Amino acid sequence: MRLSQMLFVTLREDPAEAEIPSHKLLLRAGYIRRIGSGIYAYLPLMWRVLQKVSQIVREEMNATGAQECLLPQLQPAELWQESGRWDTYTKAEGIMFSLVDRQEREMGLGPTHEEVITTVAREMIRSYRQLPTHLYQIQTKFRDEIRPRFGLMRGREFIMKDGYSFHATEDSLKETYQAMHQAYSNMFRRCGLAFRSVEADSGAIGGSGSNEFMILAEAGEDEVLYTEDGKYAANVEKAVSLPADAEPSAFTTYEKRETPGTDTIDKLCQFLKCSPTQIVKNVLYQAVYDNGTTVLVLINIRGDQEVNEVKLQNELVRQAGQFGAKTVIALTVPDATAQAKWATQALPLGYIAPDIADTYIHSEKNLAPKFLRLVDPTVAELKNFVTGANESGYHVVGANWGDQFQLPKLVVDLRKAKLGDRAVHDPSQTLQSARGIEAGHIFQLGTKYSKAMGATYTNEQGEEAPLIMGCYGVGVSRVAQAAVEQSYDKDGIIWPVAIAPYQAIVVIPNVNDAEQVKAAETLYSELNQAGIDTLLDDRNERAGVKFKDADLIGIPYRIVTGKSIKDGKVEVVQRSTKTVQELPLTEVVSTIQQWVNAACS
Amino acid sequence: MRLSQMLFVTLREDPAEAEIPSHKLLLRAGYIRRIGSGIYAYLPLMWRVLQKVSQIVREEMNATGAQECLLPQLQPAELWQESGRWDTYTKAEGIMFSLVDRQEREMGLGPTHEEVITTVAREMIRSYRQLPTHLYQIQTKFRDEIRPRFGLMRGREFIMKDGYSFHATEDSLKETYQAMHQAYSNMFRRCGLAFRSVEADSGAIGGSGSNEFMILAEAGEDEVLYTEDGKYAANVEKAVSLPADAEPSAFTTYEKRETPGTDTIDKLCQFLKCSPTQIVKNVLYQAVYDNGTTVLVLINIRGDQEVNEVKLQNELVRQAGQFGAKTVIALTVPDATAQAKWATQALPLGYIAPDIADTYIHSEKNLAPKFLRLVDPTVAELKNFVTGANESGYHVVGANWGDQFQLPKLVVDLRKAKLGDRAVHDPSQTLQSARGIEAGHIFQLGTKYSKAMGATYTNEQGEEAPLIMGCYGVGVSRVAQAAVEQSYDKDGIIWPVAIAPYQAIVVIPNVNDAEQVKAAETLYSELNQAGIDTLLDDRNERAGVKFKDADLIGIPYRIVTGKSIKDGKVEVVQRSTKTVQELPLTEVVSTIQQWVNAACS
Repeated sequence: MRLSQMLFVTLREDPAEAEIPSHKLLLRAGYIRRIGSGIYAYLPLMWRVLQKVSQIVREEMNATGAQECLLPQLQPAELWQESGRWDTYTKAEGIMFSLVDRQEREMGLGPTHEEVITTVAREMIRSYRQLPTHLYQIQTKFRDEIRPRFGLMRGREFIMKDGYSFHATEDSLKETYQAMHQAYSNMFRRCGLAFRSVEADSGAIGGSGSNEFMILAEAGEDEVLYTEDGKYAANVEKAVSLPADAEPSAFTTYEKRETPGTDTIDKLCQFLKCSPTQIVKNVLYQAVYDNGTTVLVLINIRGDQEVNEVKLQNELVRQAGQFGAKTVIALTVPDATAQAKWATQALPLGYIAPDIADTYIHSEKNLAPKFLRLVDPTVAELKNFVTGANESGYHVVGANWGDQFQLPKLVVDLRKAKLGDRAVHDPSQTLQSARGIEAGHIFQLGTKYSKAMGATYTNEQGEEAPLIMGCYGVGVSRVAQAAVEQSYDKDGIIWPVAIAPYQAIVVIPNVNDAEQVKAAETLYSELNQAGIDTLLDDRNERAGVKFKDADLIGIPYRIVTGKSIKDGKVEVVQRSTKTVQELPLTEVVSTIQQWVNAACS
Repeated sequence: MRLSQMLFVTLREDPAEAEIPSHKLLLRAGYIRRIGSGIYAYLPLMWRVLQKVSQIVREEMNATGAQECLLPQLQPAELWQESGRWDTYTKAEGIMFSLVDRQEREMGLGPTHEEVITTVAREMIRSYRQLPTHLYQIQTKFRDEIRPRFGLMRGREFIMKDGYSFHATEDSLKETYQAMHQAYSNMFRRCGLAFRSVEADSGAIGGSGSNEFMILAEAGEDEVLYTEDGKYAANVEKAVSLPADAEPSAFTTYEKRETPGTDTIDKLCQFLKCSPTQIVKNVLYQAVYDNGTTVLVLINIRGDQEVNEVKLQNELVRQAGQFGAKTVIALTVPDATAQAKWATQALPLGYIAPDIADTYIHSEKNLAPKFLRLVDPTVAELKNFVTGANESGYHVVGANWGDQFQLPKLVVDLRKAKLGDRAVHDPSQTLQSARGIEAGHIFQLGTKYSKAMGATYTNEQGEEAPLIMGCYGVGVSRVAQAAVEQSYDKDGIIWPVAIAPYQAIVVIPNVNDAEQVKAAETLYSELNQAGIDTLLDDRNERAGVKFKDADLIGIPYRIVTGKSIKDGKVEVVQRSTKTVQELPLTEVVSTIQQWVNAACS
């Protein structure tokens, strides 16, 4: 492609709308244009990157025997009602765009395709002899994000590969899951990205086990905890660890103490001169279930630890049955009004006791009508601990379970693992932390959707059984931007060779110099013939502008037909290292060819 | 691909939902599944066909210098309000799905992308030096069709290539338009389709000139009129012709005649023993404009001719200004209530006179408040004609313009051209008729969108001028189904080689015969290595079932490793002709290769 014939516009200034480097660079370099909140036009350079990422994804998927298809983006509400997700997705979380057609029928715009594929499978799969089978698609998806941001990172319209596998046995699912783990690792490696596979929370998709593939970058929205031995890595949402040991308590006798102005753990530690590991901290949340029930949740957790809200949300969903509900639609710390009220009345915030009973809560008419207490394992073994006295300005010290407070049966891990914690698999390893961009997520779904939607097959014994499912997603457009977030410098983007829109650019410093033009045209044509995607900067611009643009758009290899052309040589610059070398005209194609092959192997 | 590992399900019976052969066959052969009204899943075989069509489209577009991009499907309402199409598309015609996001902002789901591309162009194009430029995309589009039908032919979610070019001059637009005409002809030819380029109505897209590309097939929704000399072809919506000459009138004296029971042209001709070419027929329509104004439209047209409602609609839009409106949102024959009322009162249907005046209409309070009379050229030259007396049961004969009736200035072509009419370019040619499926449409848009949306550039004289635009669409999914509609037999689909999902299928009649299996595996592998997309039917099924399935899914070349394998030979069957021949194993790959090359050249 000749730049003179391309709609090629770069910006010298950072666009105001962009917050992170990759977003700024993609806008400045003319890869994308914003059309609406979280909605972008992919211009020709970007489209080429997306095609290259897609092709790598496609090749790795096909190699596993998965078959490409394309499912509709418009999805009838009935399918989502069958799976039980319509209300959650369109109302409670509101993540799915929905509309009514001219017949007043409700439809959603697909953020994911479990319902559609399960419908297809239930019609087509009859027998175990058709299993396993795996269909995937590369498609634009939609999510009505609360806060669209960072360009393609969290857009409302984005490109994904999503695949769905069907199995007769759990072993078969695990086999495909492992094959997908390998295929995903291959994809990200081939895209030239530094990434990490981590254990992940399965969230609203459901299922029994899942892994995320994180592209490592400072601007990543996710925190990853991992050990140096390579044996453990997890999203902080999911991570487990061994907390530091609690220090022995100095309070051997139970007593109530006046502790004025100690409504935080820090203040309390200072006042009592104790360690936070000796404190049972009592944290309040307010959960709203899908049937409208509001539940006040009290969590007992060690003073030095924080609540992991994803783990809490999952536990609250597991407890939904006792409140006649199916899922949680909102989880918040109690609002200011409630806090102000409680601080002066029944629930003295900062001084709450671990076992405020259901009846106690209910004695106050205006408080939440339902109550749930959850205990984190970190407090179960504490002896002679410090905790609230349930009276403003007072704590108790030297308390013990079974004596002053009861320990309920429900002890569940609600703790946020953190940097420096010891690893569960090997306490000699401590958790390290990194930021990552979630670019892939693979799930063992099990029978969640097939049971809900009646997708069964006849097994070898002639019985009807629900299909066992897996699902596997890659954020294609997110991968493209994440590559930039991982690889840029002050001058612009540094594309990995495998997914660069063009691998080489031939720059003519002076288009009025016939010798330069002739050499450039020859190289341009030879490089493309050799299968190297090459741009020709034949614009009537100053050489400096051209070099700046080539750096900004991040083409891996720049060939300049400058003054040394008289000696039959050109300057070749590698974008990533800025290494400059002179090469004889005759060696340019073979050299670039070697570099490309080495980079894409 | 091995059929044993593919989600491959064919149906023996025609699905009840399908009306036309191609729709039935695509469902039966497992290419598509219905997910909702006008919404289909493209299964792996179909996806391969769509990819092959897309690739041909892409190659032809790239060859013209157009650049591929991808624009958003979610389109902010503001853009469509700027162009003035939001109300028409979402309300009046309701063809665009619309929704509100969680911020209550309105958005549409793109049926077309003039607004989005014009927004991109207005931000990026500053100077004539950036022109011409042409961006295209291959993408899923949405239309909330009143009556989705015929599978992919008229779906609510479908795949299109749409391209938009920008120019500094009309000449430059015409040059690209011609290049597109050639590229489109190449595409359809390369897809192996019989097609015809025809003059077309520009409809709601607007602009000054357009051509449609019709894939010829009996089930086509469109009628095409053309001449044998190849010099004229048009969609019947747009077609012009010379009508048959009117017969001289026998009525030389004007008089009013009692003509009981002659409320149709046929009855009147019989009663008066005259030719319909001597009659001025007066046809009533009711038009509703976008500002709510209802207009009663009276058309004078020759008795043997019919009104072309597309031409009428276009004329009514041109007249919108006089009613303070912009466009027509409904055009109907007056409803039964109005007809019944008029028949007994002011407008005696079947006996209406050509010049019922505005004042006359207005004298009846309950009639339409606005009135428009349009005269077709076929009646302007009539002498001594027959027409209604505006009194039930009475006509007049021997009437003349200027004597009994006035001829207004507005004489416009509203006539439907038809089979057998004489051609305008050469009256010795008569119009022929064919059915077609509209698969491509190219438009010279002009400045309709750039003016409305303020997309200007600086021309060579340093002045701001609106960009001149063209737009060009291909229905990729429609092309795929149209190919089937054009090419099938009683046994199934007969794919053109260039867009067949697989070009060859190797069938093992008996998978328990080791020799058959070995030969088949070798051929399967050799064919794929030679670049021929090949299926292997290695299922444990009867040979008859396999042959039926191969015919049904329409793979061009079937290779059967049957009994003659003992003599080193296999049977090769060409799907289109059912020609069977025995070939030595060693010649199979080269022979198929030759056939494929010949078919795709």
